[in-house]
Order: sequence, then structure tokens, then C-alpha cells
Amino acid sequence: MAAQRSWGSDDQLGALNLSTPETVLRALATPRTGRVFSIAHKIGRESPVQDRKHPTWHTTTVREAKSGCVAADDLLIMHSHSGTHIDALSHYWRGDTLYNGWPSGAITNEGAPHLSIDRVSGFVLRCLLLDLSDVCPTGKAGHGFEITLDHIEEAVARTGSSIEAGDAILLRTGWVAQYAVDKATYNWGEPGIGIDVAEFLAEQGVVLIGADNWGVEAVPPATKGEGLIVHRAMLNRFGVYLLENLELEELATDAGPGAYLLVVAPLRIRGGVGSPVNPLVMT
Amino acid sequence: MAAQRSWGSDDQLGALNLSTPETVLRALATPRTGRVFSIAHKIGRESPVQDRKHPTWHTTTVREAKSGCVAADDLLIMHSHSGTHIDALSHYWRGDTLYNGWPSGAITNEGAPHLSIDRVSGFVLRCLLLDLSDVCPTGKAGHGFEITLDHIEEAVARTGSSIEAGDAILLRTGWVAQYAVDKATYNWGEPGIGIDVAEFLAEQGVVLIGADNWGVEAVPPATKGEGLIVHRAMLNRFGVYLLENLELEELATDAGPGAYLLVVAPLRIRGGVGSPVNPLVMT
Amino acid sequence: MAAQRSWGSDDQLGALNLSTPETVLRALATPRTGRVFSIAHKIGRESPVQDRKHPTWHTTTVREAKSGCVAADDLLIMHSHSGTHIDALSHYWRGDTLYNGWPSGAITNEGAPHLSIDRVSGFVLRCLLLDLSDVCPTGKAGHGFEITLDHIEEAVARTGSSIEAGDAILLRTGWVAQYAVDKATYNWGEPGIGIDVAEFLAEQGVVLIGADNWGVEAVPPATKGEGLIVHRAMLNRFGVYLLENLELEELATDAGPGAYLLVVAPLRIRGGVGSPVNPLVMT
Amino acid sequence: MAAQRSWGSDDQLGALNLSTPETVLRALATPRTGRVFSIAHKIGRESPVQDRKHPTWHTTTVREAKSGCVAADDLLIMHSHSGTHIDALSHYWRGDTLYNGWPSGAITNEGAPHLSIDRVSGFVLRCLLLDLSDVCPTGKAGHGFEITLDHIEEAVARTGSSIEAGDAILLRTGWVAQYAVDKATYNWGEPGIGIDVAEFLAEQGVVLIGADNWGVEAVPPATKGEGLIVHRAMLNRFGVYLLENLELEELATDAGPGAYLLVVAPLRIRGGVGSPVNPLVMT
Repeated sequence: MAAQRSWGSDDQLGALNLSTPETVLRALATPRTGRVFSIAHKIGRESPVQDRKHPTWHTTTVREAKSGCVAADDLLIMHSHSGTHIDALSHYWRGDTLYNGWPSGAITNEGAPHLSIDRVSGFVLRCLLLDLSDVCPTGKAGHGFEITLDHIEEAVARTGSSIEAGDAILLRTGWVAQYAVDKATYNWGEPGIGIDVAEFLAEQGVVLIGADNWGVEAVPPATKGEGLIVHRAMLNRFGVYLLENLELEELATDAGPGAYLLVVAPLRIRGGVGSPVNPLVMT
Repeated sequence: MAAQRSWGSDDQLGALNLSTPETVLRALATPRTGRVFSIAHKIGRESPVQDRKHPTWHTTTVREAKSGCVAADDLLIMHSHSGTHIDALSHYWRGDTLYNGWPSGAITNEGAPHLSIDRVSGFVLRCLLLDLSDVCPTGKAGHGFEITLDHIEEAVARTGSSIEAGDAILLRTGWVAQYAVDKATYNWGEPGIGIDVAEFLAEQGVVLIGADNWGVEAVPPATKGEGLIVHRAMLNRFGVYLLENLELEELATDAGPGAYLLVVAPLRIRGGVGSPVNPLVMT
Repeated sequence: MAAQRSWGSDDQLGALNLSTPETVLRALATPRTGRVFSIAHKIGRESPVQDRKHPTWHTTTVREAKSGCVAADDLLIMHSHSGTHIDALSHYWRGDTLYNGWPSGAITNEGAPHLSIDRVSGFVLRCLLLDLSDVCPTGKAGHGFEITLDHIEEAVARTGSSIEAGDAILLRTGWVAQYAVDKATYNWGEPGIGIDVAEFLAEQGVVLIGADNWGVEAVPPATKGEGLIVHRAMLNRFGVYLLENLELEELATDAGPGAYLLVVAPLRIRGGVGSPVNPLVMT
Repeated sequence: MAAQRSWGSDDQLGALNLSTPETVLRALATPRTGRVFSIAHKIGRESPVQDRKHPTWHTTTVREAKSGCVAADDLLIMHSHSGTHIDALSHYWRGDTLYNGWPSGAITNEGAPHLSIDRVSGFVLRCLLLDLSDVCPTGKAGHGFEITLDHIEEAVARTGSSIEAGDAILLRTGWVAQYAVDKATYNWGEPGIGIDVAEFLAEQGVVLIGADNWGVEAVPPATKGEGLIVHRAMLNRFGVYLLENLELEELATDAGPGAYLLVVAPLRIRGGVGSPVNPLVMT
């Protein structure tokens, strides 16, 4: 088991501690073109959601005042873990403890008292966009396909940069295209990283790993009966955040592999175990 | 009636067109300290919401798999226009047309086909934090209090900078404190800007105006029977976005008036007329 | 156009006025066996719902008190017009007026000020169960199939009774079986009654017509471009209520055609245009 | 501890087993006037709900088809245990077992696999309306006030009938009026029955106990630290159903104490631990 950092017994932020005023300023200085990319799916009935969850419910309402003025509003009903979203460190576990020893049993239907998403102000990170779409198979062949350390190293090299502490990693697997083809195939498995790549990235000081699939990691995992092992390692041991169901096609096409600025601003849901987000990448 | 810019008959972005790669790069270069502030209220039952709306509903759920692993999720039910949120250009109107002549009648319970919030990738803007908390009355005396152009000019001067095209303006009125004291007083009126300040800011090329009250503008407005006149002018004529229910206390206390970087990433709700947001300010 | 009864310019109950203390007592005296049948589908993600609507969302929550006692609750998110439900007289229309001249334009996102379902205390009616499952085609051949007056007369004869003012009619078409086979075929059309049967039943003084399909009437209707013509005639002209997506298999198998007691107790949704229901038949 | 009936180790209906074809026919023969009373509150934002729950959310939507026809629908978001509702036998407990030994641990956010409300077709019962509004104090003096066996016997005598196996009991405490005066006082306590009356009623073979307060029983209960002891006794030991937040004023005023027909048709929520209902009383 890989070594992991610690920020004290009260810590609830995990690897986000690696993001400092210095790394923020460095991240802000990264962009060269001034272009702004949203890497989120649109939110609505068709936004990606796992089979056993509910499609997002969006209804727009209007109210007309005596003045004849009309105010429109939206009623939004959704899982925090649907469409493009971030996992809080309290999202997934096995056993009695979460990250840094916080008790899993304290989570109730009213929310997570520890490690909730509202403890995060926001992520302002340098990110490396790694393009693995050429190595990840499509269709059912993609299920369980594991991106290797060699793949990662090659992909990093193509960015013209290297991983530094405080960075985010964005993985383009190309799996997103599967959602339009066949939702069942998209949902029941996926190509992604395995435990060795995940631990490698965490050891490099990565704060967040995002991908254009629903769970970042290879599913089904190589090891059976252990659940989503990358989730467990990242969220429970390393305090690394996961960013899922990204839409990276436009960014990858227009900007390609490289080092950019990533800003993720989760909704500050009190006690939330995650949040829908609209991550922005500035190139 | 003040002159307004135009970006063609098909335009649906309004003043966001004033945000260019150049203004983005300038905005990114603004921060000096590398500190990141969230200026959003927490989201939950207690987040600010107008009287006739519903409190936000948040329920955390868990699902245990055969492996013993547990996945937690949140069920979120909310108005897009509750808590800290942004108004899309399709949020408010009187009569048949919205900004740039788009028909208000095309908005249905399924959403807005034009000027919807999902058309915006995100806002990466330089912002000026103006502190008007010393001039705005508290309690019921605050209802209808109008911030003047003189107040604005003095507040801008205290930032050590000046308004430039492509900027955002953040107004601290101090009204936010009223919510904890008495929700009715908070909701039934507020101090804010009037039509002259709003038009002045729009003419300067401001993209977005935010405030720590629920509606940016003085309510009740000076002119009766015309609804929210600043909303109408900004959203329908100038295409300027409004950012409401901000929580500016920490930023104002720690950083004070000044020019900073503001990033707002609305959820890309398809056909949405607004979005809850977690705006970030980097100082 | 068939003649229709009237109960005054203020009336909002329509044909329910035909249910009187006398018909209630007669209905209560109908059962012979004392058996109670629910003719509703179970409510949940799989309950029948039209394609463009959302599946019902049901989440059970628990809260543990200091005493160690646990209270469970359900969070229910649903369309009133999903699964087994009743149409209020304000559910469907064309043009400016609803039943008895009430204005359709008064319906807003806050509800229907007139003809809403909460105006009904409940339905306690004698019902005739008519079995048309032998004459209605299955699969796509069922789309638009119209049950004729002859079919109805034969089916009534098999009940051993005759239609009386104040009665309800329950139509078994067998279409319900299609939902399990192919939801698209179920939803895009159905066998049912046409305008002549509907008007005949209304003229007989029927209060309510129910069926084991989603819309009671033959869809697509014989006449094009007029929408659901039976809905319009029953709800807007005759004030006859429609009860949809019934589950009549058990009742039909165990009790067969006959005259029974029907009790329908819509939720008293203030301003609601319909309600999910669990209609009970006592044989 | 009072003796209790048993209907086998697989039983999930509890005291509803005491409702037989014979008691149903007897109940149906009870009404003399043919009048139908709804004893439910209207459902909407103002319907009674405990402090820590959410107000009911009701939005009416419309959809216009090409034909110009408009279909209205309602979006309903609510707790099953809000307003007038019935408790399933799986609603409340302490420890590992529910009624008849079913495991409480099997209840998840997806519902109750045992003792859920969808197992009930419906209740068709003779009911005795007992009027205790003259003995129950109003205001805060009502908190914890316990209706005694003597009160019950006197109230039964005033119905001109006596309790029989298979009956329902409806208790008018008058507490409902408190909701309009002061929700906090209404919610934080109430007059009601204690454990001795509850056990007495259960031993008489009562299937269901309803009241015009939020919990049927005296709150706070005489015994501290044991939670809602009448709930536990009725739901967990005797399998007696509880019907809460009734609106009995009209029935009590127009019909007074007596024996009537009660029909309760819970929505068949799959795995639901309760349901909103519109109970009907026929006098």
C-alpha cells in the first residue's frame, strides 16, 4: 500500500491541501490563449446517469405579477452524482471509516457531517489533459480495460509538461461517445485507470482526477469483490477527488494535450456527498 | 433610454460578448495573493429563498453493494433561483420580447429555447468589489434605498482601479445580514441600485452585476407599476447578467475593495432560465 | 353534438352532481361477497407513465431519535397523471374555456383555480365492469381500434345489469398487458372508445369512465387534428371524469363482468388537475 | 404487556386480518344518509407537516400539442408522512425487529421489503367517531394530555354503538385547530391516547386508529426515553394502523358521534412506509 500524506487528525480536505496560494497563482498563469471551455454535459433528462438512478427532472415555471412582469424559474430535481459531477471524500467507502478516520456511520439521510462537499471553497488547479482515447477500446471491449502506467507516461509526455504537486489530471478515454450509442454498455463497465496508476498519481501530489467516463477507473476492476478499488483508494486513503462524466471532446479537438487552468466550483450543498458541476478549462 | 450594444440578430449571449480572450487573460493576471474565496451561501433548507418559493430539499441516500461497499448520493430539489444564483437573460420580462427580440412566448414548462443558461460556458471576468455597506441602511429603512452614482464612483475609487469593458461588478450592500435577523424584512424589499446606476454600469461594458441581496436593485423601485426595472433593463435591453444572494462578508473582511478575478460556472441546465452557482473570487 | 346536463353557472363538479345520497346508498348495497379489490398499479419507478414524462421517484428515509427509535418516511416525486390516476375536469382542453365556461387561461404553474381535483370529496359509485378484452386487438393492431356501441351493449348485457344515472363504467380492454411487453407500443396508441360511445355513456348519466389503458379512448382517434376528442367531450362538455391506467386483471378474473361498488378517493391536491389514486372495487 | 393476536409467521398485514368479507359487508350496511365526507386536509404548501420536514411542493404544468390542445399535469413532491396520511406497519420502531419479527435492518433508501403500504389493498371498515374535543385542552396545555379509558368509554357510549373486532376508531381531539393558530405548538406536542387506551383498543380488535392530530398519541408521552410508545405498541406489536392529521370538523359538526363507514385507500407505493390519503366517511 502506497504511502500517503497527512494533514492532521482534524483534516477534512485531503489532497486539496496540496493546492496553495502558490499553486493557484501558477495555475492562473498557465493559459496562453484566453479561451474558456466548459467540460460539462448539458443537464437535463438526457444527461448521463447510472441505470439505477433517475433521469434529471427539469421544469421551468413562470409567475406573472400585477405589473404584467413575468419571472421565470426552474425546478430542478437531480442526483448530485449524475451528469458531470464531483465526488466528495464522503461519497464511497467500505467499513467503518472514511478518509482520515472519520466515521462512515455518521452519514445519515440528512447528510454527511464530515468530508462533505460544502467544506470545499473551490478548485483552482493547473491541469494536464491526457489523451488516452487512442488506447482505450470502444464498445463492450472497453469494459475493464485498464490504462497502464506506460500509457500515462506517454500521454503526459505529449502534454509537453510533467505532473506537479497540486495538479489535476483530466483523462480523455473517449468512452463518452458510448453513451449516445448504447447507455447500457456505457453504464455497465468502462475503460479507465487501475489501482497502480491511481496510486502513482496520488503519490505525485495530484488533487483531483477527472475523466470522460462515469467512474474514472476500469470497471469491472481487475480484483473482484472489492468494489470500486480506485474510488476507495483515492477517496478513503489519499483524499483525492474524482470528477466524472466529463465532456472533453471540444477541448481535446481544439486544444489537444497540454497544461491548462482548471476551475471547479462545486455547489456548496450542506452535508452533500458530491455536486453537479460545470468545470471550466482555460487554455 | 441609454444606448446599447448589439452583436447581431442571432445573438443570445448579450454582454458576455464583451468577454474576450484578451479580457480573460487580463482577468487571470489580476490576482496577487493566490487566495480563493467562495462567495456563495451554503445550499440547504436555510439557504436564502424568496417567500413564495420552497426551501431547498436535500436528502442524502446510500446504497450498499454485495461487496459491502457503500455509495452515497444526494437528492437535490431546488429552484434555480434560490440561494446564490445567476439570472439567465430569459429570467424576467414584460411583454412579448426578451433580449434581442427573442419571443417570450416560446418559453414553456419545458424550458427556454432562447437565452437559456446552458448557452453560457462560464464567466471568467475581472471584478471590482464595491463596498456600499456603509451607505445602505439596515432593517426596514433599507427597503427601496437607492445607491447613487456618486456612491458608486466613490466605491470604485476605493478599489484603486476603474471599470473596464468586460468587467463584473460585485456590490456589497450588507443586506445579507438581514436574512439571519428577519426573513420577511429581507425578502420584501432591499437596498440596491436604481436604473441610472444600472444603465451607467451597462454603458461601461459591464458583463455581470452581483450583489449580496436577493435582487441587486432597490426594492420597491422608485417607479411603481413597472416591476423590477433594473432587471428589465439589464436582462432585456443590455444583456447584462445578474448574480444574486452573494455572501461577500469574508471576501470584504479579508481582502476589501479591489480588483480581482471572478469565475462563475453556471450548471448547464438545458433550457434553464438561471442556475445555482458557487462563484469564486481569486484575490 | 349530444345534449348535456347543467348544474348552474357556478358548478365545478359536473357529472358528479349525478351522484346523490340515494345513488350512494344504492352503490353501497351492491356488493354481495364483501371482497375488496384494488384496481391500481403499484407506484414506483415502473408504474405506467407516458414517454415524455418522468418515472416516479420514490426514496425512503429514516431518522433516528436519541431514544433509539427510528421513524421512516418516503419522499415521493411524481406526476399526478402517472400510473393509476384520475383526470380532473381541468386536465385537458382546447381554446379559452373549460367545462361550464371556466377560463382555461386562469390555470398557472400554481394550479387550477377552477375545476381542480380538491373540489371533489370522493366518488362512491355503483360501477359496471365491462369486459372488452376479447374484442380489442393486441400489439400495434390495437392502435386506434374503436370499441363500438354494439360492443358496449353486449358487454353491459353480460353484467346482468344496465347503466343507470350516477354509475361509473370500467372498461377492460386488456391493453395493460402491452406495457410489460413494449412500453412504446403501449404509449403511442391504444384501443378504446370513440366519441359516439363516450357521448352515449355521458347521456346515460355516467359520472366516471375508467379503463385499463392510458387514455380511455381510441388513440390515434378517428378524427385527425382534434387532439383527444373523447377527453375534450367528457371533461369539457359533459363534466365526466376519466380514470386511467387501471389494473383490472384480478378483478376481471375473480369476479368477472357485473355491477359492483367503486370508491375513488383522489388526494385533495389544492389546485390539482388530477391525482394518483388507488380505486377500490367491492364485489 | 397485553396479549396480541397472530396470523402466522409470514403475516405482513397485522390487524387488517380482522377485516373479513363479513365485516366489510357489515361496514357497507352502516350508512343511513348516503352522505360522503372527506376527512383529509387539502394537500399543498400549507398542509400540516412536522417542523423538520419540508412543505409539500406542487407545481402544475401544461403542454400544448400541435392540435392546439393542452394537457395539464401536476408535479407533486411530498413526504408520505405529511398532511393526512396513514402509517404502514414499517413506519416506526426501536431495535432490530418490526411487527411479527420482520427485520428493521432490511429497510433501505429504496424502501421497505416487508410491511410496506403497497401490501394493503385498502381499508373498508366500520368506524366509530369518538368526540374528545371537550376533554382535550387547547394550546400548550394540550401537550402530553392523555385521554383516559373513562373518556373513551363515555365517548363510545355517545356513538350509540360499541367497539367490535374489525372496526376503526376515529378520535376527534380538536387539536387540528391549533395548526392554524401556531404551528410550533401544534407540532411539538399534542393531546392523545396513552398506552393503556391504545392496548385496550387493540385488544378489542381495532384495525386502525385515526385522529385529528399529528400522531394519535399524547406527546410528550408519560414515559420518557421510550419514543412514541403508542406507535411502537400499535405498529410493532399489534399491527394496528395509524391514520394522522385528520380533518374531522365537518363530519363532527354535521354527523356527530356515531358508527359509520370508513374507506381508506392508500396509494400503492412499492416499498412505501406510509401514504398520503383522502379517507372517506359515509354516514
